[in-house]
This record gives sequence, structure tokens and C-alpha cells, in this order.
Amino acid sequence: MSRLSSSANNQDNLRVVLVKTRNPLNIGAAARAMINFGFARLRVVKPYEPAFRQARSAVGATDVLANAEQFASVADAVADCALVIGTTAARRREILHRLENLETGARLIRERMNPGPVALLFGSERTGLSKQDFSHCHWLMHIPTAGRQPSMNLGQAVAVCLYEIAREQKPATAEPRLAAASDLERITSLLFEALDACGYVRSGGQKSAKEKQRRMVRRLSIPAEDAETWMGMLRQIAWKLKR
Amino acid sequence: MSRLSSSANNQDNLRVVLVKTRNPLNIGAAARAMINFGFARLRVVKPYEPAFRQARSAVGATDVLANAEQFASVADAVADCALVIGTTAARRREILHRLENLETGARLIRERMNPGPVALLFGSERTGLSKQDFSHCHWLMHIPTAGRQPSMNLGQAVAVCLYEIAREQKPATAEPRLAAASDLERITSLLFEALDACGYVRSGGQKSAKEKQRRMVRRLSIPAEDAETWMGMLRQIAWKLKR
Repeated sequence: MSRLSSSANNQDNLRVVLVKTRNPLNIGAAARAMINFGFARLRVVKPYEPAFRQARSAVGATDVLANAEQFASVADAVADCALVIGTTAARRREILHRLENLETGARLIRERMNPGPVALLFGSERTGLSKQDFSHCHWLMHIPTAGRQPSMNLGQAVAVCLYEIAREQKPATAEPRLAAASDLERITSLLFEALDACGYVRSGGQKSAKEKQRRMVRRLSIPAEDAETWMGMLRQIAWKLKR
Repeated sequence: MSRLSSSANNQDNLRVVLVKTRNPLNIGAAARAMINFGFARLRVVKPYEPAFRQARSAVGATDVLANAEQFASVADAVADCALVIGTTAARRREILHRLENLETGARLIRERMNPGPVALLFGSERTGLSKQDFSHCHWLMHIPTAGRQPSMNLGQAVAVCLYEIAREQKPATAEPRLAAASDLERITSLLFEALDACGYVRSGGQKSAKEKQRRMVRRLSIPAEDAETWMGMLRQIAWKLKR
């Protein structure tokens, strides 16, 4: 009888983040898959309130559900995470992002759970993650499915992803620790300030330009040790530009 | 966007057999996972009748459900199959049987779907497959799960098994192409210009500061496709700062 015994601590570094989930059964199913594969840290962003309450108060609600953390925004939910991955059924919108299939993506996630927290985002049953949600992600991951019906049931998608992330567990190579999402967001804000002040962004298309810039910052893989220095530079640049 | 394109015919050789399933949602979930991963042949053995009727007659019931075949016994359901595999949460009873984990088992099943029909059995939500059901199996397969809660939700177990059986043979690891050194150096120069113009670098220590900044730019992994945009931003910032 084989078990996922090793690296319990590493697995504690994965945050499963459910964004705007509507169906309490799906929140429960996600929690059950987490327990099945040895993950404990569930976060929910703007869940459909009655659904979340119902899932939490269900008879025999598990520790995973009882300890689930609730957030008002994706930014808050991933603030402490050095790697943020969005899941998608892979239709059109994600071509703006680097897209990995589950097998490769899960390997990358495993490697990065070693230094620090990693967030794995799942969107709502009906619409998945939004473009804005995606802009907080370093890259996107999709489960290779058949063309006719690529979109999976939420609870099943969570189970398949966690199965793949928990598989084999070869000793992880220590990758460089990357800047946390809160630092990346601060860097992004300073960049916005500088670009606004120097007239880089033309009027119109503001919102999509900002989402593009946010994605570009995520694609940089900024090391944690450099984050402060980049912020210092940008702060000085923005301050000077605004004088 | 990758798809499960290959071996559509082979996949037609897998029969997913649900034995004594009670919950109509689980029959529906199994069918959905089958469609997601490109399998079409669902069989049910002694389902809880109202559950099966309800699942079949649900609005938008899929071809997989509509064409599901019903049998009175496991023996009948697997009669045409050259290989019969039972799934189990791997507790005690299966020590009488050869037991494979999902990764190995799925590989064996893939190999055997080529010559002819293979049956994959899933037991009821409450009790799983019985000893008698097991006696029809060539070997058993289990999904490696965490010790605390080895038993998976039926719909999720089906999804994980089918994902592994349908898995792409060769993972495509296309790492993003990174910016060339000449682009990095241009970005570095523009950064120097901007930092000089805004007074970031104090007098003295100029040279070592620049070396540090050059290294920091190299520590970023700037994608080739983003290099032009970063240069454009920095050019605009530097131009504005120097006016």
C-alpha cells in the first residue's frame, strides 16, 4: 500500500485558491481532494456566501474546510506566494500568458514548493478565472482534455491537478526564491506610477495596458533578494518624474 | 492548446464500469470525466435504479450517458473484455491480488487497449468493489493517496484514472525563449540612463553600482517577446527624466 508520505512540509506550501466558487458541493469536493492528496491550505476568494457557509458547516466538515481562509480579492489571497498559477480550460484568452500543460506545470510547482508558498487558482464553475485574475498569475496551467468538451467539473479538475502535483516526489532541487506576489504588486504599482507620469500610456486602453504590464512583471521571475532594490529604483524614478 | 488527439480508436476500447453506484451526480460526473478525456463507453452494473434513470434523463444528458449500457452482473459487463481491472482505495482485501499504482497500471492499460476491450471497474460510494467483484479482475489498481483519507470521491477517482490513462506520451517542455544578450544590454543602458537622470546612484561607487544593476537585469528572465516593450518603457522614462 503506497502512500504519499514524503515531503509533507513541502505540500504545506501549496495554497489551493478557489475564486468565486458558487456550488458548495464543489468547495467540499476540492477540500476532499486536498485531503486525499495530502494538502491542507484552502483559500477562497469571494465565494458565493451561502455556498461557503454551507460547505463549512456541513456535518463532518473537515479540518481543511474549517481552516479555510476567506479573502476579498485575488491579490490578497496570493500576497504571500512567490509563485501564482492560474488554471484554465485553455480557450482563447490565455494566449497572452505562458501556458503549461499539467504534467510540466505540476513539475515546476513541485520544484517551487520547496522554497516557499505557491498559489494554485481555480475559477468559478461558469466562467473560470477572469482576465484580471490571470494578470496576477506568473503562468497558466491546463489539463490536456479532449477537444469536444475541454472544460472539467471543478472538483474533478482540482483532484486531477493535485494528483499530478503530489505524484512521485523526487527530491526537489532548490530553485532560487522568487519575490512574493505582494512585492510584485508593489513593483507593478510603482511601474504604473512611472509610466503614467512620463506619458507612456496613451489615453484609452488604460485598463488592458495595465493588465498587460502586470503580466509582464510576472514574467520576469524577480528574485526575492532583488525585490527591494527594484522597488527603490522605481520609487526614485516615479518620485522624480512626478516633481 | 494541446489536445488528446492520438489513439481515439484505442480509447474506444476502454469500458468504464460503475458497479452499484448510488448517487446520480456521481454517474453524471463519471460520464463528464469520460468526455473530458475522450472515452465513450460507459457501463453500469446494478445501479441504484432511480439514480441511473435520473442521471440519464438529466437535461443535456450527454451521448455517453444516453448510450450507457446496463448489466445485471459484473460477469456480464466484462464478458467481452480481455483485461479487467478493479480500482480500490487499497485497504486490506486486495492483498490477494496483484496491486499496481495508477501510474504503472495506466501504462499497462494503455498498452492493452490496442488489441482489444479493457474494463476498468469502480465500486459503490460506500463500500467500493466487493471481494466477488475483485474475483473477476486480472489485477487491481489504486491511486496513491495520503494515509489519513485514502478513499476518494467516485467522480474524482474516475477523473484521475482517466487523466492518467489518457496522458500524453511525450510532455512538451517548451520553455519561453528569453531575450538575447544584446537586448539585455540595451535594457541595462536605458536603466542606467534613467537612474542617472533621477539621481538614484550617489556619487562614488558608480562603477560597482552599475555592475550590480547589470547583474540584476541578468537575474530577471525577460522573455524575448517582452524585450521591445520594456525598452520602449525605459526609453520613454529616460527621455522624460532628462528633459
